[in-house]
Amino acid sequence: MVSTAVPPRPLSSTFLLGLAPVASWFIIRPFLDPIPSLPGLYTSIGFSLFAFIATLYLVPALGPTFIKAHLSGRDLLKDYATPIPESLGLVCASVYTLALILFIPFAFSDSLTTHSTQTPEGIFVPEFPHSRLSVYLSSLLSLLMATILGFLDDVFDIRWRHKLPIPIIASIPLLMVYFAERGNTHIVVPLPLRFLLGSLLNLGPLYYLYMSLLSTFATNSINILAGINGSEVSQALIIATSVILNDLLYLPWPIGFRLPVHLLGSKAEVEFGGVWSAGMAYGSKELVERHLFSLYFMLPLVAVCSGFMYHNWYPARAFPGDTLCYVTGMAFAVVGIQGHFSKTLLLFFLPQIFNFVLSCPQLFGLVPCPRHRVPRFDKVTNLLHPSKAIFMKPPSKLAATVLRILSFFKLVDLTLHPSGVILETTNLTILNFFLIRLGPMNEKKLVQVLICSQICGSVLAFSVRYGLAGLVYDGDRR
Amino acid sequence: MVSTAVPPRPLSSTFLLGLAPVASWFIIRPFLDPIPSLPGLYTSIGFSLFAFIATLYLVPALGPTFIKAHLSGRDLLKDYATPIPESLGLVCASVYTLALILFIPFAFSDSLTTHSTQTPEGIFVPEFPHSRLSVYLSSLLSLLMATILGFLDDVFDIRWRHKLPIPIIASIPLLMVYFAERGNTHIVVPLPLRFLLGSLLNLGPLYYLYMSLLSTFATNSINILAGINGSEVSQALIIATSVILNDLLYLPWPIGFRLPVHLLGSKAEVEFGGVWSAGMAYGSKELVERHLFSLYFMLPLVAVCSGFMYHNWYPARAFPGDTLCYVTGMAFAVVGIQGHFSKTLLLFFLPQIFNFVLSCPQLFGLVPCPRHRVPRFDKVTNLLHPSKAIFMKPPSKLAATVLRILSFFKLVDLTLHPSGVILETTNLTILNFFLIRLGPMNEKKLVQVLICSQICGSVLAFSVRYGLAGLVYDGDRR
Repeated sequence: MVSTAVPPRPLSSTFLLGLAPVASWFIIRPFLDPIPSLPGLYTSIGFSLFAFIATLYLVPALGPTFIKAHLSGRDLLKDYATPIPESLGLVCASVYTLALILFIPFAFSDSLTTHSTQTPEGIFVPEFPHSRLSVYLSSLLSLLMATILGFLDDVFDIRWRHKLPIPIIASIPLLMVYFAERGNTHIVVPLPLRFLLGSLLNLGPLYYLYMSLLSTFATNSINILAGINGSEVSQALIIATSVILNDLLYLPWPIGFRLPVHLLGSKAEVEFGGVWSAGMAYGSKELVERHLFSLYFMLPLVAVCSGFMYHNWYPARAFPGDTLCYVTGMAFAVVGIQGHFSKTLLLFFLPQIFNFVLSCPQLFGLVPCPRHRVPRFDKVTNLLHPSKAIFMKPPSKLAATVLRILSFFKLVDLTLHPSGVILETTNLTILNFFLIRLGPMNEKKLVQVLICSQICGSVLAFSVRYGLAGLVYDGDRR
Repeated sequence: MVSTAVPPRPLSSTFLLGLAPVASWFIIRPFLDPIPSLPGLYTSIGFSLFAFIATLYLVPALGPTFIKAHLSGRDLLKDYATPIPESLGLVCASVYTLALILFIPFAFSDSLTTHSTQTPEGIFVPEFPHSRLSVYLSSLLSLLMATILGFLDDVFDIRWRHKLPIPIIASIPLLMVYFAERGNTHIVVPLPLRFLLGSLLNLGPLYYLYMSLLSTFATNSINILAGINGSEVSQALIIATSVILNDLLYLPWPIGFRLPVHLLGSKAEVEFGGVWSAGMAYGSKELVERHLFSLYFMLPLVAVCSGFMYHNWYPARAFPGDTLCYVTGMAFAVVGIQGHFSKTLLLFFLPQIFNFVLSCPQLFGLVPCPRHRVPRFDKVTNLLHPSKAIFMKPPSKLAATVLRILSFFKLVDLTLHPSGVILETTNLTILNFFLIRLGPMNEKKLVQVLICSQICGSVLAFSVRYGLAGLVYDGDRR
């Protein structure tokens, strides 16, 4: 395919004009009688729809401004050199955080949040959930920090070894507020280890380390699985959707239905229904609140990612830059930490974990790591081939052993000297792995394969979480 | 003066190495017996000293990185064209917000903040001040927003008409949290108006408008009084110092002394002394807390501004960019709003108010407004002269009348056609006003005059606040 210009992708104004009244209805609905049981959720959906519209419009509108400010690059896997605006994840991040900030007054409007306290005179006064507001605000602070740091990374082009710890800085507000409020640092011990550690273990300062590392992992694992059109944003979109599906299981649904989780190996079916006793929350208001909190952060994220994906889809009209990876990664860390479901969250990162583990020999210097590890583009066939790292001097014994094992499992392709010395290896990424296993394919096909693997990962994650987890934890986990 | 290179200003490492242990002592002190009555204040001073050291070091260290990222410009009032790194206010803002974020756990460590509540069993439990934490976090959010928006302004070079409302966006977190917590929207009515309005007036939604406008004014008024080396940062420094002096009046000082405020026209002297009953707080814990809050935000601001001023002083080695104006302006708005002393704060902005009022005919299009209104530099004499705006077509009747009035008060210099038509006017800024009144001078002298006027403004502000204010408000104002 030869194309010299990449005009902005067309936007259907009838579709968008039709969406605005729908979004407005969701925002107005909580003010109408009968007031719904979860008014904040309606507002959140309304804001998310507006965020979706805003992202769809703003990304192409601001593209030229970004190019003018030296924020652009050419697409390495295309045969044209048209500058494509870079770091438009900033637009997503801005729309996303602004939506979350405007949502502050609505986040605590749910009827289930109006706890009341008894004054000395015996009057019940509805109490504002200040503590939950602090949690919300500290999450927002971390997201804003991630936005700033991501954008700085784009502007100043920080080297990857230096930027690995950046998400730790962005997680400081989370940790500080958790510490200031003397947050819980206990974890539930899996059944097989309880004879050793008891049922609850106080991690103390290690808990803070764990929170920081979760932010670092969530951010960087998306950032290193990048390089082809649509890869970053599609990962974020699928993980966010998975978190939303998981959250929905804990909401008080007014209708009744059953999930056949016994098919997944659990002991009993899960019954949903009624107003407060429904779902996996088993009547726990706290669990409902945590998963509502998670929904409030994930719904607008899905919105801005969908809007951006339209312009980032092959062939891309806009690049996300590091800003998008930082903000989405931090958003996942925030809901995992504040919603207390970080183990479930990690299950949604299976392809990222695979990619990270596979990348380790290159990340930690065992195997040479070129500046770009993206697949190699063949102009003639328009296909992508696995890209290679060349050994300038023979690999160390350890490196050679590791590579031979990886090669045995067909995770890498090695080029050997007749003497048996390794001359080249394919770069250790999941994208190259797909190309080795499935053969050369074009960029669009490759991102589709990546999306499929991410969806399969999420399906597996749900099976593990609601099936196998019953074997190592009590059935009634909170 | 002819110089072709501008080497970084030297840093005395002995001074800085000597400062580090002092800073550490302030941080360690609250953990040692006897615990001081305001432990948070010690920590804040310690953090501020470290912020000062960090800014001093980081500004020259990061300069080349900024130049590489196209963030540089030549100094318009110099005879050399060496690129000077621009928007290093970002470094100040980052150090400042990071210091404030790390300070979160200490901000509420003061013994006076441990309110306790009685449980149904009759036990007194110390209660964490969640509400004050939310206020602190929302302030931080607004500061981070101001940082992002300021930096975006620097990178994308937004036109000034478009950027006027930007601080309103940055103030949204403040407003949202104020609204979510159902903050007080009443104001105290001055004595002469009480027969009409009562002693307290509920402004309702207007109060939010007022908060937004305060942010906009504080930010933009510093941003338009700019253009010569050291002007922005020196304004911020003097205003912040004035706010600190005002805060100190409300702290519980362990020593006793008297302020002869009767000399300023007040009815009685103010006596300081004792631990809780001291100062202008008259024993009100709430007033002490508000002014402590203000101190926590102002001390590190003074620190980063001092550190930056060293490099921004004539001839400047680094420019602040809009980021510095946004962040300092927002910091002032935050303490004015959250500390409930916005009227006192505005008194510290006298030169800015003068400059803003004088600028109005140009800002609102009555008089032509060139892109830069900074004084004109004469290479031969190394002096600054008032810069001029040229009328391409004769001014409107209104514009001519306004300019003639301004000219009568020697606020502008007009160039007239023999027929009496105005051909040129000096640009309507306080800097040009100084040059008209005091004659051409060099840039260093001009910034010194500006600093003097700012200090005089603050002295006048204190006289009005603690002298004349007694005439229009009750003596015992809170």
